[in-house]
Amino acid sequence: MNDLTISLDVHASAPLYEQIYNYIKNEIQSGGLPFKERLPSSRKLADYLQVSRTTVNMAYEQLTAEGFIEAVPHRGYFVCDLEGLVHLKPAVAQSTGRKDSGEKAYPFDFSPHGVDLNSFPHNVWRKLSKELLQEEDKYMFRLGDPQGEPKLRETIAVYLHQARGVNALPEQIIVGAGNDFLLLLLCSMFGGGMKIAMESPTYRKAYDLFRNLSNDVQIVEMDESGMRVDQLEKTGAWLAYVMPSHQYPLGTVMPVKRRMQLLLWAKSGKDGEERYIIEDDYDSEFRYKGKPVPALQGYDRDDRVIYIGTFSKSIAPSIRVSYLVLPQRLMDLYKARARNISSTVSRIDQMLIAGFLNEGYYERHLNRMRAVYRGRHDALLEELKAFRGICRVSGENAGVHLLLTFTNGMTEEEAIHRAAAQGVRVYGLSGYYVGETGKPARDTVILGYASLSEQEIREAARRLQTAWLAGE
Amino acid sequence: MNDLTISLDVHASAPLYEQIYNYIKNEIQSGGLPFKERLPSSRKLADYLQVSRTTVNMAYEQLTAEGFIEAVPHRGYFVCDLEGLVHLKPAVAQSTGRKDSGEKAYPFDFSPHGVDLNSFPHNVWRKLSKELLQEEDKYMFRLGDPQGEPKLRETIAVYLHQARGVNALPEQIIVGAGNDFLLLLLCSMFGGGMKIAMESPTYRKAYDLFRNLSNDVQIVEMDESGMRVDQLEKTGAWLAYVMPSHQYPLGTVMPVKRRMQLLLWAKSGKDGEERYIIEDDYDSEFRYKGKPVPALQGYDRDDRVIYIGTFSKSIAPSIRVSYLVLPQRLMDLYKARARNISSTVSRIDQMLIAGFLNEGYYERHLNRMRAVYRGRHDALLEELKAFRGICRVSGENAGVHLLLTFTNGMTEEEAIHRAAAQGVRVYGLSGYYVGETGKPARDTVILGYASLSEQEIREAARRLQTAWLAGE
Repeated sequence: MNDLTISLDVHASAPLYEQIYNYIKNEIQSGGLPFKERLPSSRKLADYLQVSRTTVNMAYEQLTAEGFIEAVPHRGYFVCDLEGLVHLKPAVAQSTGRKDSGEKAYPFDFSPHGVDLNSFPHNVWRKLSKELLQEEDKYMFRLGDPQGEPKLRETIAVYLHQARGVNALPEQIIVGAGNDFLLLLLCSMFGGGMKIAMESPTYRKAYDLFRNLSNDVQIVEMDESGMRVDQLEKTGAWLAYVMPSHQYPLGTVMPVKRRMQLLLWAKSGKDGEERYIIEDDYDSEFRYKGKPVPALQGYDRDDRVIYIGTFSKSIAPSIRVSYLVLPQRLMDLYKARARNISSTVSRIDQMLIAGFLNEGYYERHLNRMRAVYRGRHDALLEELKAFRGICRVSGENAGVHLLLTFTNGMTEEEAIHRAAAQGVRVYGLSGYYVGETGKPARDTVILGYASLSEQEIREAARRLQTAWLAGE
Repeated sequence: MNDLTISLDVHASAPLYEQIYNYIKNEIQSGGLPFKERLPSSRKLADYLQVSRTTVNMAYEQLTAEGFIEAVPHRGYFVCDLEGLVHLKPAVAQSTGRKDSGEKAYPFDFSPHGVDLNSFPHNVWRKLSKELLQEEDKYMFRLGDPQGEPKLRETIAVYLHQARGVNALPEQIIVGAGNDFLLLLLCSMFGGGMKIAMESPTYRKAYDLFRNLSNDVQIVEMDESGMRVDQLEKTGAWLAYVMPSHQYPLGTVMPVKRRMQLLLWAKSGKDGEERYIIEDDYDSEFRYKGKPVPALQGYDRDDRVIYIGTFSKSIAPSIRVSYLVLPQRLMDLYKARARNISSTVSRIDQMLIAGFLNEGYYERHLNRMRAVYRGRHDALLEELKAFRGICRVSGENAGVHLLLTFTNGMTEEEAIHRAAAQGVRVYGLSGYYVGETGKPARDTVILGYASLSEQEIREAARRLQTAWLAGE
């Protein structure tokens, strides 16, 4: 029986074939059974071990499948040549389970990424979710359309038209798990080597994402109307990334005149150059004076605007649902180069959001959120009057954050530091600047008020008085 | 009062300020109010219209915000210069609502992408979902960790170790909405210009995705053990994309020897070249002989394997949850270049899957699915005996599809065509071939059996006899 001395344990939890498999595998790995060694025939080994031949055959088949041994017709099983030692490491080391956050907790955090979640309609969400799962519909678990559920896309088309003046057929809409994913999809569609113009400061994640995929990002100067189109023309870029309804982080609303200039730029590509505008309509839902400014896409008569919006800001950040509206003229390119990327949003979530919009819950939710944010906005503006002597306020007409630019020589770093000492976190504008042009003045901080109650805002403002006004 | 003749309707649903706003906007757009025209002061217009000055001011503010008019200090409001005509198109054209599928329905479809959904554990899913939403926990709706919920990552680490022999700390795991997204994330991490080796035939979506992002994809020859490492070395690629547990579409299981050669290749980069293997472990859960072959990652002692797996195949295709295990040595690169890409899976879905695994449901579900698929697998193999004279079967030991290679001169096209005439859809292998090397022989079809019952498989096989054996 060669030198195979296997002791089998019929009471062990592992089946007999696995015990044989494990023994032989270990022998091969340890060198006890060297390369080219012939194994006993299954009949002989079965006799020797007092088990059935099937049991031995199963062990041999597993060893063969994993490449430890090979069957040579009419001659038997032989140990394979393993180039290098096969070694399964012992059980996985335990994670500490703690994240190294390195982030200190502040009693008051004016995060520009905050969202109020007290108003989240839990009951409605639960009801819709329950109804959807009640159906026991296999359809819900099949792979869906890569562009997203037709029903959700129809709903989004109607919503975007009514609320944002966007003109889109459901066929032009692509639903995806967040804006970052949709930007990756655009990169995939256009391929590498996009020459894209951005403002500075801008939405930094988009800038990094474009650059990481080896695109050529050109920084274009801004004035009080937004991206300067005369400068844009000089860059040679054929894509322009803008946020006309509410520039992030400056809060600028692009006037109609500048929009028209941008659209004119987009249709003026020479020698067959195709130009496009990416309109990121991030937090256009919240506006405190008059009704929302319609999207640039709605003014576009030349099919040149790629529109991006999201439910993550208006419903809840963990709901990963954004949407892209492609110009008709890009649909063929999308189909050829990006339609094979599977949908990134589960069908259940898509149908849930479709229901949320169609049954009127979204409208009510938005109105409630607007009222909540307006209250916080007004409270903050009122409190900021005390700071009139040392700074001016901008970007306050929309969104859920505003900017304070110090006029008394205080730097961003100093303001952040002094506020932190009072337990208040404010954010520097300089981190949003990108590229070489448009160097930050380092005199401005951002205050996001979405996740603080009016009372918290008032208390935080009193602390900021201590921080910034002491000694003034 | 110049020539503004606004007629207001106090009973209209639109508020008065909006009627004023709309009237003036239309006048500007139609040219009735030309560039540089001065508007009446808000006091005058309020008097004239018998409304409050606040109402007029709101209209003016909205017009100013949208850039139709501008305020000149001490002089009043003036019409702006609109370069080009501002024109909101009428209501969105209605979508037909129908998809132009162009796909004919077959009574029997051997799709290799099929999944059995009759066994989907609806009750468990509903129960877990309900429990999660019951908690009314704001936490669930906040933006989560871009790598995925720590709890889910811990669960995946334990599962992967036990089921696939993968050694991973939760810190190395990234949860994402599908394999396509995770491949996009890898591209973003490595930047453009990846030089990546693939087999042919291969998983075509990955090939297209890499190419669309301007990466250099090199095709490497295969033999019966998988990718030829001697050829791989010659390509100069520093990334190799393989499916060692079950090559798609050929079904090859890579033997240990070839795995060792691949790992040796990965650690042998010269002049500081960093080499990596992308191991796509797509449908390794289903194996019909012995226990599953451990993942290549488990044999890797040099921290060179990037592992990708998914729940979309094993739970349900519409559940968009996949996972990436990065080598420790790539974590810094990930943090620097891709960690700012937000998570693509909602927190609720992540916690749901964590619960599904932790409470033992996943294990039970997998065992049930294995039994179901094994039954279908055995039924199909039994039926295929009738075709022994005209073709041979391969790739049948794992996954949920197998290959038939015709030995009687029948071409792929002919086989597909004749099967279609009998209402049976089979799939050609040639579409999976990529690049110039490894031209398809066009003599092989793929039969996926996951979405057909045993009875349907038997009936479909009888039809295939009519299709392929008539006249033999």
